[in-house]
Amino acid sequence: MLRRFIESSRFQNFITAVIALNAIILGLETSSTIMDVAGPFLHALDQIAVAIFVVELAMKLFVYRLSFFKRSWNVFDFTIVAITLLPAGQGLSVLRALRILRAFRLISTVPSMRKVVEALMRAIPGMISVLTLLSLVFYVSAVMATKLFGAGFPEWFGSIGASLYSLFQIMTLESWSMGIVRPVMESYPHAWMFFVPFILVTTFAVLNLFIAIVVDAMSTHVDVEGSQTRDEIESDHGEIMNELRELRHELAKLNARVERDEKAPEIK
Amino acid sequence: MLRRFIESSRFQNFITAVIALNAIILGLETSSTIMDVAGPFLHALDQIAVAIFVVELAMKLFVYRLSFFKRSWNVFDFTIVAITLLPAGQGLSVLRALRILRAFRLISTVPSMRKVVEALMRAIPGMISVLTLLSLVFYVSAVMATKLFGAGFPEWFGSIGASLYSLFQIMTLESWSMGIVRPVMESYPHAWMFFVPFILVTTFAVLNLFIAIVVDAMSTHVDVEGSQTRDEIESDHGEIMNELRELRHELAKLNARVERDEKAPEIK
Amino acid sequence: MLRRFIESSRFQNFITAVIALNAIILGLETSSTIMDVAGPFLHALDQIAVAIFVVELAMKLFVYRLSFFKRSWNVFDFTIVAITLLPAGQGLSVLRALRILRAFRLISTVPSMRKVVEALMRAIPGMISVLTLLSLVFYVSAVMATKLFGAGFPEWFGSIGASLYSLFQIMTLESWSMGIVRPVMESYPHAWMFFVPFILVTTFAVLNLFIAIVVDAMSTHVDVEGSQTRDEIESDHGEIMNELRELRHELAKLNARVERDEKAPEIK
Amino acid sequence: MLRRFIESSRFQNFITAVIALNAIILGLETSSTIMDVAGPFLHALDQIAVAIFVVELAMKLFVYRLSFFKRSWNVFDFTIVAITLLPAGQGLSVLRALRILRAFRLISTVPSMRKVVEALMRAIPGMISVLTLLSLVFYVSAVMATKLFGAGFPEWFGSIGASLYSLFQIMTLESWSMGIVRPVMESYPHAWMFFVPFILVTTFAVLNLFIAIVVDAMSTHVDVEGSQTRDEIESDHGEIMNELRELRHELAKLNARVERDEKAPEIK
Repeated sequence: MLRRFIESSRFQNFITAVIALNAIILGLETSSTIMDVAGPFLHALDQIAVAIFVVELAMKLFVYRLSFFKRSWNVFDFTIVAITLLPAGQGLSVLRALRILRAFRLISTVPSMRKVVEALMRAIPGMISVLTLLSLVFYVSAVMATKLFGAGFPEWFGSIGASLYSLFQIMTLESWSMGIVRPVMESYPHAWMFFVPFILVTTFAVLNLFIAIVVDAMSTHVDVEGSQTRDEIESDHGEIMNELRELRHELAKLNARVERDEKAPEIK
Repeated sequence: MLRRFIESSRFQNFITAVIALNAIILGLETSSTIMDVAGPFLHALDQIAVAIFVVELAMKLFVYRLSFFKRSWNVFDFTIVAITLLPAGQGLSVLRALRILRAFRLISTVPSMRKVVEALMRAIPGMISVLTLLSLVFYVSAVMATKLFGAGFPEWFGSIGASLYSLFQIMTLESWSMGIVRPVMESYPHAWMFFVPFILVTTFAVLNLFIAIVVDAMSTHVDVEGSQTRDEIESDHGEIMNELRELRHELAKLNARVERDEKAPEIK
Repeated sequence: MLRRFIESSRFQNFITAVIALNAIILGLETSSTIMDVAGPFLHALDQIAVAIFVVELAMKLFVYRLSFFKRSWNVFDFTIVAITLLPAGQGLSVLRALRILRAFRLISTVPSMRKVVEALMRAIPGMISVLTLLSLVFYVSAVMATKLFGAGFPEWFGSIGASLYSLFQIMTLESWSMGIVRPVMESYPHAWMFFVPFILVTTFAVLNLFIAIVVDAMSTHVDVEGSQTRDEIESDHGEIMNELRELRHELAKLNARVERDEKAPEIK
Repeated sequence: MLRRFIESSRFQNFITAVIALNAIILGLETSSTIMDVAGPFLHALDQIAVAIFVVELAMKLFVYRLSFFKRSWNVFDFTIVAITLLPAGQGLSVLRALRILRAFRLISTVPSMRKVVEALMRAIPGMISVLTLLSLVFYVSAVMATKLFGAGFPEWFGSIGASLYSLFQIMTLESWSMGIVRPVMESYPHAWMFFVPFILVTTFAVLNLFIAIVVDAMSTHVDVEGSQTRDEIESDHGEIMNELRELRHELAKLNARVERDEKAPEIK
């Protein structure tokens, strides 16, 4: 009975509404003028929303038990609500900021949103091989940049972490030349021999990531069209073959009849 | 009779010419040297153009009455001319600047332009689901950025509005690192853990928006090709089946004749 | 005979070589150290190359006369060489810089380059309608920007020309926010209501330009595949119908024979 | 026997592990705190890895002899290890930084990575013609920029090399306006007539590069679908024709029989 209640669309709409309201409340909390007026009230509403989410997940855990964690969207919901409960205990401001992540639960409760995210996720496996290659290029480039320019420009290339961040910035083409490479070239005039190939290789790889997704999406469509055409061909072919077989049967009958006629007169 | 006049291509060409001329006049008005020489003259021409547009729309409203508002291009024209009439009354300089929006009426009066805009519009429904997701990501990120960095960088992340604008700038990759994230990282060294995933997620989503349009446009084409092929197959199939049925009919007749022959001699 | 000489591949290879050499010489002329050593020599070589081009075009004009101008590549060659001859007369440094444009004659003399440019050109007609719309959006936005922000920021939006340039910069997303819109927003806090929609509309339009080309290129390919399939279907269909017609003919003969047999005995 | 050892998957996994470990060691060497603690130890490990690579390549060279260089991946491995051996002799810091390039040997030893790189490489031939054109545009633009703006802005356009770098930066749209073209326009107000067309032409060319790859990737897919459909059509057609030919044969037999019957009675 509890299961029927949990799975009812009324209950799910209620949860969706609570999530949306909670997201608005957390948004209002960023305004200090609103907080001065209605701070405690908003905070109380937030606490109620958290309580509702905890009860909701507790009920689901009770009903589905361990099979609850088999659906990845449930794990997603559980993780988000769990993160949300941490700050209450520790009071860290960063963890308080994470409470708005609850709004992402809209993705798992609204079916159309879930579909979009699932569609986006489906593009990822096709990208893994290029992403691995890109990671290798980033790692090698970061080590090289740290060794080559780390001493002269510790802020940008002082450690592998700093280099990885700077190289990511360069890959997005943000201020790569005026901000980074031209200053570096004043100390190391040949620095462009490192950065220009890096830009060419990484943008080419990213471009191919992108192409992989386009081609994948199109392929599915072309395949469906092609198999539809082939289905049509096959069904038509079946019909023609049936007709031909019947014709041949008819002809065989006729042949047999004529043959009998041939012999019949002789018998007469 | 008025309807025939309004719908005549001569009248529509006249309106198109007035719109184009009006656009040029409003362009000339931006030059102070020209305004010194011919200011009142240009202003008078502009007033005449407004008068023509008002009369045009009044005639259309009189002829089509409420069904006028059923065509969305008419609503578009009406809104633009209505905006145009506001400044005369209020004299706000911003509203005066909006008068040039009248030039957009060229889109509704020139059929080829109308087609392009309609084609662009048709791409939008396919983008709504990803756009909704993107809005959610923006809202959640803006609330988080305001809570995390609002105190330290009020100019960029002081309110949800400011954060939304800054995040939009970051999504377009404009000065995201040198301009925003590096300064923020000086106060919050882990800020990259917020911004780099934000960039990856939003650019990936925008990329998928784009892919959705490409695939949609291609699909239509592939579908047309596929259905043409299937039409050809179907018509060919029909022809073959007709021929086969006729053959069978012929064969059946022959069979019947032979059968009659068989029995006939016996009767004889 | 002159025509055969002009059209010989040996002559064309010679001209291609002269163009390439001339391009290298003009490149060397940019180095002041090389100019100090071999300046007059390089200049003499350049003069010889110009002389060769003039003679080449004079011969072609003599041979083909006015029909010379019917091929657009000839017009291209002629214009480039003509531009080249101007500086000698006037000595303007800008015109001297244009001499390197002669290197573009490689495009018209090397067939593979010509093909690439022709392929790129073929993409343009499909883009015209969106480009027209984009021009309208740019013009309207430039007039509005000049009226709204021209007084406060004359360097960026002082005239329609300045506004068009700044809007082009904004469309390419270069420093749009940190460089232009944030400073503007300090005077006009609502400026983002103008610039953000401008960015969204223009990038969406440019994206559709791009999509138009992809779809066009793909379409040609899909069409060729589709028509190949339909050709196969048609030829197969023809073969089957022939066979069926022959079958029917055979059957008709048989039918006629049986009918004759039927009557024959009666006659006997 | 040595060949079997070299080609065993155990040996290849061992080499892959050594490459990965060596990459991690070279990464750790960038951290000065780790170097203070374990510097000599890490250096020794690096030396061992180099020794292993040298022995590995020596064995391969011994086994395959000159045919070793026929596989391009072997040449790749050989070059990387050879570069790695140089610094030991010369001690240049740049060459020391190149040692991390050894990590790229993962590409040749891990089959899935090799496939990705080979797939990316396959896109290059289709891009050569546009790349050649792009090079010509860059060369001509660099010569022009050097002649036009070299005197005024020696840092950006002082030599062809500097111009090529600046134009590459402009093509990536990085700070092209605020950083380069606006300052240049203060001295040469018409500089935009050079730079805006340059941006339009090069981005259009790059875009077409990109389109060429998409279309190429899609084409292969569409072709496979099309040829599958045509194979289906062909096999179906063959089956129908066989059936029809058999029918005709049957009919011919029948015809012959009836003809014989016709004549037979007359003979009787």
